[in-house]
Amino acid sequence: MLKRFLLTPGPTPVPPEVLAALSEPVIHHRAPRFTEILTEVVAGLKYVYQTANDVLVFAASGTGAMESAVVNLVNPGDAVIVASVGNFGERWLKLTRQWGAEVVALEYEWGTKADPADIERALAEHPETKAVYVQFSETSTGVVNDIRAIGEIVAKTPAILVVDAISGLGATDLKTDEWGVDVCVAGSQKALMVPPGLAYVAVSEKAWAVVEAATQPRFYFDWVAARKKMTGDSAQTPYTPAVSLMVAQNAAIGLIRDEGLECVFERHRWLGKACKEGVKALGIELFGPDDPEANSVTACKVPAGVDGGKITKLARDKYGVWLAGGQGKLKGQIFRFGHCGYFGASDILVGMGVVEMVLAELGYDVAFGAGVGAAERVLMKSPVQL
Amino acid sequence: MLKRFLLTPGPTPVPPEVLAALSEPVIHHRAPRFTEILTEVVAGLKYVYQTANDVLVFAASGTGAMESAVVNLVNPGDAVIVASVGNFGERWLKLTRQWGAEVVALEYEWGTKADPADIERALAEHPETKAVYVQFSETSTGVVNDIRAIGEIVAKTPAILVVDAISGLGATDLKTDEWGVDVCVAGSQKALMVPPGLAYVAVSEKAWAVVEAATQPRFYFDWVAARKKMTGDSAQTPYTPAVSLMVAQNAAIGLIRDEGLECVFERHRWLGKACKEGVKALGIELFGPDDPEANSVTACKVPAGVDGGKITKLARDKYGVWLAGGQGKLKGQIFRFGHCGYFGASDILVGMGVVEMVLAELGYDVAFGAGVGAAERVLMKSPVQL
Repeated sequence: MLKRFLLTPGPTPVPPEVLAALSEPVIHHRAPRFTEILTEVVAGLKYVYQTANDVLVFAASGTGAMESAVVNLVNPGDAVIVASVGNFGERWLKLTRQWGAEVVALEYEWGTKADPADIERALAEHPETKAVYVQFSETSTGVVNDIRAIGEIVAKTPAILVVDAISGLGATDLKTDEWGVDVCVAGSQKALMVPPGLAYVAVSEKAWAVVEAATQPRFYFDWVAARKKMTGDSAQTPYTPAVSLMVAQNAAIGLIRDEGLECVFERHRWLGKACKEGVKALGIELFGPDDPEANSVTACKVPAGVDGGKITKLARDKYGVWLAGGQGKLKGQIFRFGHCGYFGASDILVGMGVVEMVLAELGYDVAFGAGVGAAERVLMKSPVQL
Repeated sequence: MLKRFLLTPGPTPVPPEVLAALSEPVIHHRAPRFTEILTEVVAGLKYVYQTANDVLVFAASGTGAMESAVVNLVNPGDAVIVASVGNFGERWLKLTRQWGAEVVALEYEWGTKADPADIERALAEHPETKAVYVQFSETSTGVVNDIRAIGEIVAKTPAILVVDAISGLGATDLKTDEWGVDVCVAGSQKALMVPPGLAYVAVSEKAWAVVEAATQPRFYFDWVAARKKMTGDSAQTPYTPAVSLMVAQNAAIGLIRDEGLECVFERHRWLGKACKEGVKALGIELFGPDDPEANSVTACKVPAGVDGGKITKLARDKYGVWLAGGQGKLKGQIFRFGHCGYFGASDILVGMGVVEMVLAELGYDVAFGAGVGAAERVLMKSPVQL
């Protein structure tokens, strides 16, 4: 009878209104009603992306859309810059190398941000660079890169800026057009509050010019075919879409519109701040910068003497709460709270309370209630509903 | 986007498995599949009731079944004893008087238990007493009466014992047969983990003999008609049943069977204890006895200087958490946590954390985290999953 709480940065909890939408009878995708849904979803995504660019929808997980942002842009031998600050930065490295790019890798210590000055320097050294790949919110560490500054730099060059915003879009302010993000990748299962299975790309005119010169073989993820089919009065998808997930995404976008994007960001700011203050009050070090805009994930160092691998297991098995552990080389060294999407004050209370119990059971000297109490002091002050 | 938590003693949260069952296509009630469901629900209720007596099912709220336990038993002018310890005790008084009974009212200060010795004395003074009416868990105060002791007393007389176990059945051990409960009323929306709309009565042979002599006009709630129709290989209900709620109740009983009744009771004991210790650590007085078996509701006195009417409103509007206020003459004087049914450690963390924030906002000097911390110390020790 364990009551389950999903406090991970993807998948994330799905609101009841969206679960209800998911339960609607399946409709056929070659019918006017699906065209309406697709059109509404795309319009809603443009609102969340803060973009007037084309937004394409794929039945895929985020990695599929990331790969599409390589095969539609980069030809073998093309120069690209990848700024990697964690596990998903490494995914850009793997993807670009897999498809034959000549990669300039700017690799940062995990837990730190990419330095825009390094990207500026690399672009100057490699003026032939076709694209700069970077994460917005690096899910593995919680770090949020300064896309505004990076965008300003890349915009002055012929290169395009490709941003993985999978765990950040809809949680933290990202002005796709204003900041010059040419390709922006997102997924349904984070702050967009839908189960995994849908992935999105927003593509600028500057990026479309690059797409026109792309020669890699591609079919399912072909952006040109997708754009052609997804626009106009009888918009559809080229291949069978994940119909129910689309209906759910439409409902979730309705919730985001109702709350208002600014309130959504503000809610995430207060949740992030509460989580960080709670962790610090327990004497636990944050992994990475204490950044007021890093509000999708709070990454925490496993305290000395505690078996890091056991934290998430005990939380899950004894209290029904899913937290995230460390990924890649951080396995066992950090644990993470996800709070992007359908999260509120209650989730922070549960997460912090369970971490207190779990750490105490694993031998850490916990001041019971100290983390929750510190979080409460923050949550109380929020000007928006949590 | 407020995430809502139902921490009231009815309705209570409904498990996802039960919500899924509720969403199944509606079946027709004059068909073999419904007979199977009714039969399974009745067998499951017998397990929860710990009874071999007949269990009847009505599409009604608990009060409907309470009324049925008057009209099927008491003729105008019949003597009954009502032991009232709160708002729902008063409902027995109203119901028995409404139907013309001669009522001996044993009225206790709200927050205290009924004294079995008083019932023994009243039965001795009124040997013609037909029935003794009492609550198991008095939802308005959280008090749990000593049904075992009362049952022993009533069993020695010709009177029958009628117990309202609406908020207690399935949360706290109630041995219907062993303790001599002749009529036991329950409802779907408490520890039975289904939305409101179904009500149950378990009827002993001793009670059936009383039913045979009942002369009150009755139709919908007629127990004889219900028993006749609900038994046998083609069991049905006399009138249209709440089909989907029955399917849901069947699923919920499956969850109770999976957890095991003893584990269910033990879980409730630890949740109740954690809630009480949390409240006390905040310097808040419990309303009523600090009883280890009173685990459906924790009633708390509103601290001096705090506007009691605002506690539940603020918790609901600002944090999405429904707590219960005081009922009847306790309005504004107490607030209540419900934790009977689909509740776990996470709910206690949320409830206690929100109460800390709300009381602080209403001017009470809160040691942030003290209540949650005290609750955690209890929850950690539970030998069963919470």
